[in-house]
Amino acid sequence: MIPIVKGLVEGDRRSLARAISIVDNQEAESRQIIKEIFGMTGKVKTVGFTGPGGAGKSSLVGRLIPECQALGHKVAVLAVDPTSPITGGAILGDRVRMLGNLEDEKVFMRSMASRGAIGGVSKSLRNAIRVLDAAGYDLILVESVGAGQLEIEITKVVDLTVVIFTPNTGDNVQAIKAGLTEVGDIYVVNKADIDGAGPLYNTIVDLIGDTERKPSVLKTSAKTGKGVKELAKVIDKLLSEKSNNKDRQRRMLEEELKGMVSDIVEQKVAVMLSENKKYSSIVDKLANKEIDPYIAAEQVAASLFK
Amino acid sequence: MIPIVKGLVEGDRRSLARAISIVDNQEAESRQIIKEIFGMTGKVKTVGFTGPGGAGKSSLVGRLIPECQALGHKVAVLAVDPTSPITGGAILGDRVRMLGNLEDEKVFMRSMASRGAIGGVSKSLRNAIRVLDAAGYDLILVESVGAGQLEIEITKVVDLTVVIFTPNTGDNVQAIKAGLTEVGDIYVVNKADIDGAGPLYNTIVDLIGDTERKPSVLKTSAKTGKGVKELAKVIDKLLSEKSNNKDRQRRMLEEELKGMVSDIVEQKVAVMLSENKKYSSIVDKLANKEIDPYIAAEQVAASLFK
Repeated sequence: MIPIVKGLVEGDRRSLARAISIVDNQEAESRQIIKEIFGMTGKVKTVGFTGPGGAGKSSLVGRLIPECQALGHKVAVLAVDPTSPITGGAILGDRVRMLGNLEDEKVFMRSMASRGAIGGVSKSLRNAIRVLDAAGYDLILVESVGAGQLEIEITKVVDLTVVIFTPNTGDNVQAIKAGLTEVGDIYVVNKADIDGAGPLYNTIVDLIGDTERKPSVLKTSAKTGKGVKELAKVIDKLLSEKSNNKDRQRRMLEEELKGMVSDIVEQKVAVMLSENKKYSSIVDKLANKEIDPYIAAEQVAASLFK
Repeated sequence: MIPIVKGLVEGDRRSLARAISIVDNQEAESRQIIKEIFGMTGKVKTVGFTGPGGAGKSSLVGRLIPECQALGHKVAVLAVDPTSPITGGAILGDRVRMLGNLEDEKVFMRSMASRGAIGGVSKSLRNAIRVLDAAGYDLILVESVGAGQLEIEITKVVDLTVVIFTPNTGDNVQAIKAGLTEVGDIYVVNKADIDGAGPLYNTIVDLIGDTERKPSVLKTSAKTGKGVKELAKVIDKLLSEKSNNKDRQRRMLEEELKGMVSDIVEQKVAVMLSENKKYSSIVDKLANKEIDPYIAAEQVAASLFK
């Protein structure tokens, strides 16, 4: 066992933090870490939290920690925050500050930067969850900072997805409907103490009446703590139903494997293209507009597979 | 020539709008459209606008349109706004409203939704630019609404990138530096009429002193219009230098071709995986933790390439 794995298994937080950095940045040592810990994993349960900016995700996750600990869980939080090349680490910095006061011995919190491709986020996240699993954490709360494709990727990696809405983010019914029908297992109307929470809650419940699977809808206030204990209980109940689903676990592994195989194949294709003389003559024809991009791509693909 | 291509070439705006929808959504007809117009393209020049939310990108682009028209360009605007599965079309809706008053016969504006993968954004954008090129537009202003990986993808597709900062988005020097060194050809301090614009401008100029390529730094106010004419002139000058670079054009085509070849290969791999019996036994071993994900991926890849 390499020292860093020994350290994290024995509860050393510095080893744990370093191991997550290594898998997050996909450094060379990542492979050895996963190889050594893979056999120890399989106990962890994961919950993703998503929703528009300003919905109070961080505060709600902060409130959930002690409630989940009270239910017997050893809790860790991962905030997935892909760094923008333009706006840089600003969000990350804010977040670390915001969560700072919650850092104690019982909970482990970490922002993941996952620079680069969306596919890299899933890979980093899956492996960070494995590291936490091996370190004895049994409940990981994953907070998505970004939006769009990232949210979808995270829902594929976690056992359960909580979508958080709030009366004052100005989402219209259409937007809420899109969010409802696609990803959530639990819908939360946060900031339930402010105006508009009741109508928003009713809108969501109405929309859910139309869907086949009937996710839970809850009201919370991260400010007062109201409803948070109930949310923790619903999460706990759904997790024990969902995460023991062997078919689902297998599908998730298949998904991961496909991604990793695609990475290998893509690298091979890149090497082939740089060595294939035919390729450069096809680019010439494309540049001269003798063929269009679709025909060019088919010609290259055909030459690779011969 | 299919009717829609005939229509857009003859200046029919409905045909043009429909053709862009088709290539944006990558509908079946997309291929035929690109095939027919590819030979007519090559005159267009493209400028990407990126920067943190709240920097006033839309307003500045709005102000730039008449200035670019005054320089003799036929201008179109594409706002790339990948729809979040959670927050849905909200941003898109706002934007269309915001730009509504600018819609006239001389300028063509379009929001592109590009649902799905980041790679899909580049593909849709390249083809939408070709459609506009065939329709006679010679200057396309591409506004990025999303952040992160999307911004990087857009800069690969356009000839020139303008990065917009503003005193009140609270970006720290580190973030600005990251933005500066990576993507921009021109840096703009917008909202130059408010407090903090001077120091921000000086910070950027100082940081640029450290970089090898020396991009332009300009101050504008989308509110008063100050500095916008100068920005249009700088864009025009840089475009004529940059877009005539044959090597760069060829590299962009190569990049596109690689993406398209990867798509074809990925589809082939998906088919192979579903037909390959060995694959399912490898997933079994992975699920039983007999092998780790890295070894599993290598075993699958090896079986595909034999």
